Amino acid sequence: MAPLKSWLQIDPLSHFSLHNIPFGIISTQSSKQPRPAIAIGDHALDLHAFTEGNGFAKLSAIQPHQAVFSSPTLNAFAALGRPVHKVVREYIQSVLLKDGPFPEVLERNEALQKQALLPLDQVQTHLPMQIGDYTDFYAGLNHAYNVGVLFRGAANALQPNYKHLPVGYHGRASSVVVSGTPIRRPTGQILANPAAEKKQPILSPCKKLDIELELGCFVCKPNQMGQPISVDDAPDHLFGVVLMNDWSARDIQAWEYVPLGPFNSKNFGTTISPWVVLMDALEPFKTSGIPNDTELLPYLNEKGRESHYKIDLSFALTPSSGDTTILSRTSATQLLFSFPQMLAHHTIGGCPFNVGDLMGSGTISGTTKEEKGALLEQTENGKEDVKLVGGETRKFLEDGDTVSLTGHCGSENGAIVGFGQCIGRIEPALDIKF
Amino acid sequence: MAPLKSWLQIDPLSHFSLHNIPFGIISTQSSKQPRPAIAIGDHALDLHAFTEGNGFAKLSAIQPHQAVFSSPTLNAFAALGRPVHKVVREYIQSVLLKDGPFPEVLERNEALQKQALLPLDQVQTHLPMQIGDYTDFYAGLNHAYNVGVLFRGAANALQPNYKHLPVGYHGRASSVVVSGTPIRRPTGQILANPAAEKKQPILSPCKKLDIELELGCFVCKPNQMGQPISVDDAPDHLFGVVLMNDWSARDIQAWEYVPLGPFNSKNFGTTISPWVVLMDALEPFKTSGIPNDTELLPYLNEKGRESHYKIDLSFALTPSSGDTTILSRTSATQLLFSFPQMLAHHTIGGCPFNVGDLMGSGTISGTTKEEKGALLEQTENGKEDVKLVGGETRKFLEDGDTVSLTGHCGSENGAIVGFGQCIGRIEPALDIKF
Repeated sequence: MAPLKSWLQIDPLSHFSLHNIPFGIISTQSSKQPRPAIAIGDHALDLHAFTEGNGFAKLSAIQPHQAVFSSPTLNAFAALGRPVHKVVREYIQSVLLKDGPFPEVLERNEALQKQALLPLDQVQTHLPMQIGDYTDFYAGLNHAYNVGVLFRGAANALQPNYKHLPVGYHGRASSVVVSGTPIRRPTGQILANPAAEKKQPILSPCKKLDIELELGCFVCKPNQMGQPISVDDAPDHLFGVVLMNDWSARDIQAWEYVPLGPFNSKNFGTTISPWVVLMDALEPFKTSGIPNDTELLPYLNEKGRESHYKIDLSFALTPSSGDTTILSRTSATQLLFSFPQMLAHHTIGGCPFNVGDLMGSGTISGTTKEEKGALLEQTENGKEDVKLVGGETRKFLEDGDTVSLTGHCGSENGAIVGFGQCIGRIEPALDIKF
Repeated sequence: MAPLKSWLQIDPLSHFSLHNIPFGIISTQSSKQPRPAIAIGDHALDLHAFTEGNGFAKLSAIQPHQAVFSSPTLNAFAALGRPVHKVVREYIQSVLLKDGPFPEVLERNEALQKQALLPLDQVQTHLPMQIGDYTDFYAGLNHAYNVGVLFRGAANALQPNYKHLPVGYHGRASSVVVSGTPIRRPTGQILANPAAEKKQPILSPCKKLDIELELGCFVCKPNQMGQPISVDDAPDHLFGVVLMNDWSARDIQAWEYVPLGPFNSKNFGTTISPWVVLMDALEPFKTSGIPNDTELLPYLNEKGRESHYKIDLSFALTPSSGDTTILSRTSATQLLFSFPQMLAHHTIGGCPFNVGDLMGSGTISGTTKEEKGALLEQTENGKEDVKLVGGETRKFLEDGDTVSLTGHCGSENGAIVGFGQCIGRIEPALDIKF
């Protein structure tokens, strides 16, 4: 299929091609009320203004629901369900299509263009969803293995449960922030001398601040408490995907995590990209993940369906004075479990989901050093340096470092389905007086 | 001080004496919209109706904020802050006081009594707060020790971090339900034969369904991401306390919890009592917790302040056909860390709290068998039976069992500050076809 062409000028390498149409929440200097938008090329199409200007005139199905486009989050739109997401996305595509069926809606409507088509660099993006609960999984097999080798050796790298179920933990929804939000280096209890027999913690700014390259997936359809979602039904419950940086304080984590898991080492901030790429937009890039050599229980068996996505992922580091170094390139195919499997497992005991709940994939790493999705793995917990292009080195993140994740599907000019960037800059720790 | 007397008839043993005035959310057959109320003796005072009937006429401070009493949760009231909670509670006490200053407000206002004073057994209670995030701590030292002995032996019962910080994990806010909500036995992965070398899970209804006797504490004042709350300031952030049953699937937990902590073993349901006892009502019952023989870092040092509460706690089990057996009696003084310490620790790295966030204490156990707050401890993980009065025995919960937690402060007739009950009944597992 040739790439879809728009009457709007779109850079052929743009992440936000006509094939994408990702949804987000924006505000502008002149209109500070957050409202839904889609990203297209270098523009945001303000869906509140588009609706006010009767932009959905040709889509009768959405008309009873147009209030969702004046909401400060995408939850109400998400709750309309996947069939509605599909027709809305396809309608917006058709409105933007060159020689499309509805030129009068926007292409030949300069007044509405002026109201609704905003330069992307002039909009502020916000957290796209109100997140009720956030769960982070650990489905990146290579990451789990690499970390296991570091702490337990190769023979016991993976725990016995690892391949039987998507291991996960409940995260802190309040600490999920949108790309661009500064991340303050956390202070916490760490062992100054972990090898000492007497374990004596100190209160200290984290010295092993790390990144985790992940995907996040939002839920658009709830289940009642006590009612599992089958792995077959799970895709209907998924709204869309974002990039996620699950910032991690490795030294705080090492001391606190036994026996109840990571806590303050994670809840100081998790950054997501602002534009939610709908499941429909990812559909053409479906593929398999890492084959699981363990026979799964039937409730996790996807019967050979392709439920992963060929998303090229990378992250880069920019010191406060210096050039950007791409530190890792990997792929979302490096996951052992898919989002439908995660949701099926999460709900098998009856755990209820609400619209807007978020699931993280876990850190995604390939098998080589250049494919590792966290500094913990790249530096072998601080034993080795990674080199930056300007000559600096890093074991973990320093104050002023900016980390940027990016990811996209496809390589054909004009048909890229990308996520844009997921960015955070490290601020120095607070000087704590108590 | 002699107990306060009301013109309203109140059983002298009522948990909801004039000294209490706990807040909750109710609805009735004739008015299904959930709204705030307080419990007093055998009545609920409907605060929406009370407000509509100009009941706050004599409290000018609250008048700009009266909309909070028409909200379907207590979040808006909680957000007004502790000084407002104090004057509202004291005003309601004064309105209910025999020979009080404002007899015209309710005592001599039969029309308003009819509108607002509802028999408690005719109101439906709802979840009192919209819970953004829920965290469960593990501050019951005896529980942690008892469980540690069961799984690691006495020498290594407590992990090295245990006394240095309040260990906790992020729970699942969506699964917190109000007393009376049925709890479905979860299905999940368990090891049919944990001793076997090859770890092969099966999908099964939980066979080790347990209770955990806890307190929950709601937060009423937010902090910004990156800004810790000091242990000195923490009390201003606390709204009130409820009973909490953190239902636990021990067999699911044993298989899933390494290395990221409890997950599906907990997120199928957590029950809280409906009436939030305000911090001010608990103030007279302040005391010390378990002395910590470890020197704490300054950010956790309460400088000798009493920040625990003398709350007598118990839980009882009622089989589907049979009498009730009280299985445990313990006290909230059996905690190593206080709620202010938990909040100070939770935020030391900058984790943001929102109004309505919930912290659980962890299971509260004394030192004897009759004081243990979970069946896991009482039966030594199913090795021993507990006996019920009707002759039945239990290792863990069976379908149809009703578990009821209760707790109160004080013993003086007419001055008891109690929590009422926190009840849940076990429904059989779903017959899962996939």
